[in-house]
Amino acid sequence: MVMSGPIVLTDNRYGKSENRVVRFYKENARHEIRDVNVSTTLRGDFAAAYIEGDQRHVLPTDTQKHTAFVYAKKPGLDTVEDYAIALATHFVDTVEPVSSARIDVDSYGWQRVSVDGREHDHTWVRQGPEVRTAAVTVAGKGDARQTWVIGGIKDLVLLKSTGSEFADFLTDEYTTLAPTHDRVLATSLIVQWRFAEIGGFDWDEVYDGIRATLLELFATTYSKALQQTLYAMGNAVLERFPVLAEIRLSAPNKHHFEYDLAQFGIENKGEVCWAADRPYGSIHATLQRADAPEAGLAWVP
Amino acid sequence: MVMSGPIVLTDNRYGKSENRVVRFYKENARHEIRDVNVSTTLRGDFAAAYIEGDQRHVLPTDTQKHTAFVYAKKPGLDTVEDYAIALATHFVDTVEPVSSARIDVDSYGWQRVSVDGREHDHTWVRQGPEVRTAAVTVAGKGDARQTWVIGGIKDLVLLKSTGSEFADFLTDEYTTLAPTHDRVLATSLIVQWRFAEIGGFDWDEVYDGIRATLLELFATTYSKALQQTLYAMGNAVLERFPVLAEIRLSAPNKHHFEYDLAQFGIENKGEVCWAADRPYGSIHATLQRADAPEAGLAWVP
Amino acid sequence: MVMSGPIVLTDNRYGKSENRVVRFYKENARHEIRDVNVSTTLRGDFAAAYIEGDQRHVLPTDTQKHTAFVYAKKPGLDTVEDYAIALATHFVDTVEPVSSARIDVDSYGWQRVSVDGREHDHTWVRQGPEVRTAAVTVAGKGDARQTWVIGGIKDLVLLKSTGSEFADFLTDEYTTLAPTHDRVLATSLIVQWRFAEIGGFDWDEVYDGIRATLLELFATTYSKALQQTLYAMGNAVLERFPVLAEIRLSAPNKHHFEYDLAQFGIENKGEVCWAADRPYGSIHATLQRADAPEAGLAWVP
Amino acid sequence: MVMSGPIVLTDNRYGKSENRVVRFYKENARHEIRDVNVSTTLRGDFAAAYIEGDQRHVLPTDTQKHTAFVYAKKPGLDTVEDYAIALATHFVDTVEPVSSARIDVDSYGWQRVSVDGREHDHTWVRQGPEVRTAAVTVAGKGDARQTWVIGGIKDLVLLKSTGSEFADFLTDEYTTLAPTHDRVLATSLIVQWRFAEIGGFDWDEVYDGIRATLLELFATTYSKALQQTLYAMGNAVLERFPVLAEIRLSAPNKHHFEYDLAQFGIENKGEVCWAADRPYGSIHATLQRADAPEAGLAWVP
Repeated sequence: MVMSGPIVLTDNRYGKSENRVVRFYKENARHEIRDVNVSTTLRGDFAAAYIEGDQRHVLPTDTQKHTAFVYAKKPGLDTVEDYAIALATHFVDTVEPVSSARIDVDSYGWQRVSVDGREHDHTWVRQGPEVRTAAVTVAGKGDARQTWVIGGIKDLVLLKSTGSEFADFLTDEYTTLAPTHDRVLATSLIVQWRFAEIGGFDWDEVYDGIRATLLELFATTYSKALQQTLYAMGNAVLERFPVLAEIRLSAPNKHHFEYDLAQFGIENKGEVCWAADRPYGSIHATLQRADAPEAGLAWVP
Repeated sequence: MVMSGPIVLTDNRYGKSENRVVRFYKENARHEIRDVNVSTTLRGDFAAAYIEGDQRHVLPTDTQKHTAFVYAKKPGLDTVEDYAIALATHFVDTVEPVSSARIDVDSYGWQRVSVDGREHDHTWVRQGPEVRTAAVTVAGKGDARQTWVIGGIKDLVLLKSTGSEFADFLTDEYTTLAPTHDRVLATSLIVQWRFAEIGGFDWDEVYDGIRATLLELFATTYSKALQQTLYAMGNAVLERFPVLAEIRLSAPNKHHFEYDLAQFGIENKGEVCWAADRPYGSIHATLQRADAPEAGLAWVP
Repeated sequence: MVMSGPIVLTDNRYGKSENRVVRFYKENARHEIRDVNVSTTLRGDFAAAYIEGDQRHVLPTDTQKHTAFVYAKKPGLDTVEDYAIALATHFVDTVEPVSSARIDVDSYGWQRVSVDGREHDHTWVRQGPEVRTAAVTVAGKGDARQTWVIGGIKDLVLLKSTGSEFADFLTDEYTTLAPTHDRVLATSLIVQWRFAEIGGFDWDEVYDGIRATLLELFATTYSKALQQTLYAMGNAVLERFPVLAEIRLSAPNKHHFEYDLAQFGIENKGEVCWAADRPYGSIHATLQRADAPEAGLAWVP
Repeated sequence: MVMSGPIVLTDNRYGKSENRVVRFYKENARHEIRDVNVSTTLRGDFAAAYIEGDQRHVLPTDTQKHTAFVYAKKPGLDTVEDYAIALATHFVDTVEPVSSARIDVDSYGWQRVSVDGREHDHTWVRQGPEVRTAAVTVAGKGDARQTWVIGGIKDLVLLKSTGSEFADFLTDEYTTLAPTHDRVLATSLIVQWRFAEIGGFDWDEVYDGIRATLLELFATTYSKALQQTLYAMGNAVLERFPVLAEIRLSAPNKHHFEYDLAQFGIENKGEVCWAADRPYGSIHATLQRADAPEAGLAWVP
């Protein structure tokens, strides 16, 4: 095949990644903390910077960093979603060459330290490994403005010691796996959900509700495969939260193999397992409503 | 907005990730090594597994693992691209519910140990951090079969101590950055290139040529911004390798800030820098030929 | 200096590291989980393996792995300390060339998933990042046997938003730091404590008490420096737990720098900070009782 | 055991860790680069800071950071060892409460980019994963001054595809491992060597020679166990470099298991292996000359 057409710059974007912003609210003796990792990404009329090295349309990533910190002060970081919307809107509204802005936020959890059974006013211990995520995209100026919000959670590590099987699967010449009707099921979930609309609900309430739903369905679904569990989780979330249009779930199958103790004359009734690192299964599912609005730029990184 | 439409499973896929396959060729006293990390991903008629827990169409990920190792023996791992094409084709051809298969391969470099100035026959030292990558997708059975190949390199860390500036950029109320006409430019490149066709060239030769081109252009391009450097690199690769349809470059701007020694009465002529971790700039560019064939499933994970 | 003396093998040891043992207790519908990472290290009469390649005294690390899993079944992993003592004792007692054995255990926390306000019987969500640790050393056979136990916690990330200062410090020609009477104090603690004796108390109760003490003192100590906070924590732990002989604390000073918003005309009353990665302060302290028994092999890795 | 003795602060130290210093030499068009990670640790009369929060003896870690950068300018980073000696000496000599200072340096390798077969003047590509290390301790003021230097290398990943066996080992009731007379041997070495004296040789020449010796011995020693290989490496280094007093080697046994292809009717003559992550063997050896000078504070962190 002779490829001789002219070379064209197509998609391009730039920004400042991993601004580690920590915001305290200190109006009262009882302080509040928001601990986030913010990345900004701008799209727009930047071809001249790539092709000719002309920076006249390029707002420095250093400026984007400053802005991420400034916006943490005001409007502030009461909720990460509102903060991200404000920050993205700022870039689209005030920076002429910018056609769309995306703000990605990881939000780290902290729990108040307990002293004599009372929560301390200004001391916390880090909770994890799970991380709350948000990805907001704002495109278009003035009346053309559109906003997409994706909420999420990642590194949510779940395990159940029974209530999971894997059997009656397809086999071929390279299949040696024995079917099992009782196994450990463990995963480290990454879930993202796209909001159908913005406003009319509380971001944190929805987040807490989705997290609880994910945990509940993982626990209570008798699992014939991780695929089925993911689907059950996603389905329940969409059913319970009509503000959502779509949900994407990604899950490694973190294998816990029953250790062979029989070779030493010891019975192992699923009690002693080896937690393997690699390889691992990878299962992905997307569920959406038939009447979901278009995703537009929501999933574009 | 009232979302009441039925909930639908849309995109889904599954596979086995990070099979750490090491293949030796031992026909002669002078052994050869291929050290790869292989991930398999299958798409197809798997909805029943998600919705009903019916595994009858699901080839276990354990089987996929076995197959990745079997194919490392034969046809073998002479080149990662041919291996990945063979493995993907196997899944599409022989597993009835599979409509497409994607194989991702990371390939780690090893250099022969030198003893008394001579390369040793069977001992190597690991080279890095750079990693060669390949992503092959095969879709469709029989005459409908299509194959896409993406080559790549990641964790290619480059630095130049001069020949880079950043000035004449857009400013706003949050801009404090001083323009500079001499700075350090450093990045950890991720580059992927899509082949327009398969066959008629040597995979390894093309890889070596692209790597050399990336390094050369990074070194010799006077950089008015990382954007410009990325574009120059991508443009040169497409110009020199007509077998390519498209190239994607992703680059953190790994900031090296001149350390303020003037506060101690010491002149710092760009000699002492602080290599920062976070935040960092993020620059992305895609270049493609105007007459490039459709990307199809090439970039779908 | 002319060094011409004979070359001697001095310290040597070997073992199996990072056995990822997961132990379930399934006697009742309400399962229990112990999730640990176990490393075994043996010392003894192994010089011939090093010097002559003679393996006759070398128990394979593969065997040590099996044994770690076997012992998770019985005596089991009710507490990691008793498990580690049993495992170490086994190696010293039954493997003739072994003079001492050390078992290092990391123990990962899991919280029961809550469904409708009730704890689920067999589903957990991973808690972290903090990790409980134990290091047990057993030396000597028969009457000569000695046992040392070190408990610990690591990756315990703490932060207080006020109640911390740093002022009146030593200065020299390279000092530019301004004193501060209100700053964020944050760290990721590693603490290890050596038990003076074994038995007569409950391992888990002591652990919970020490963890609570560390949190309480971090919260309630007005800190003139991280040094002082560490000392206060260590001192309180020793005072409250007479079963301990010694405590070692290691703490990075995870800097949270007040972001300069004044350059944009915005007041920042310690509300917006930048969480830096590197460099970081490193503070270490060891406290022990004047009448502590000899540490012996307790701290030898 | 009733522990009632007073609680005493024993060992303590503090410093600034992971200063990422990059030093360029730009006197000529052909620039030079030194890319290092520097940690400073001070010991001395600091008890008041811990016990009473009195900072009057505490030189801020921020000052130590500045000093690490200042010293990169002058005397400079021609060799990491001389830089570290100068920096440590500065702290001991000029900071009254300091009794000893330790400087740890990781040094990252860069290779000049080649353009048209010629090395580029100011562009490099990162080499790794191996890292050169140095640890210098200076103690005592004036005539009492003592200096210890430890050189090293870490993350040196080596693999040989034959010339290694493991057989005739000790067995017990939990041993199932089959002896093998041909296996893959792979490791990621950490080696540290203590210099008997300072001066009279070239730091870089010794480093290059030791690295070459380690590689040569790993390659050419027929290995009956990783223990034997480590000993052979350490012994050769001490024999060839009389300026060294002691060497410590630490090596994971990175297992490469022959994949069971026989279950599919395929012969595997050690050609297809699985590179496992965890668990791994851990082998350690220390060799020193019988007439080595005392280690003093050399190995104290």
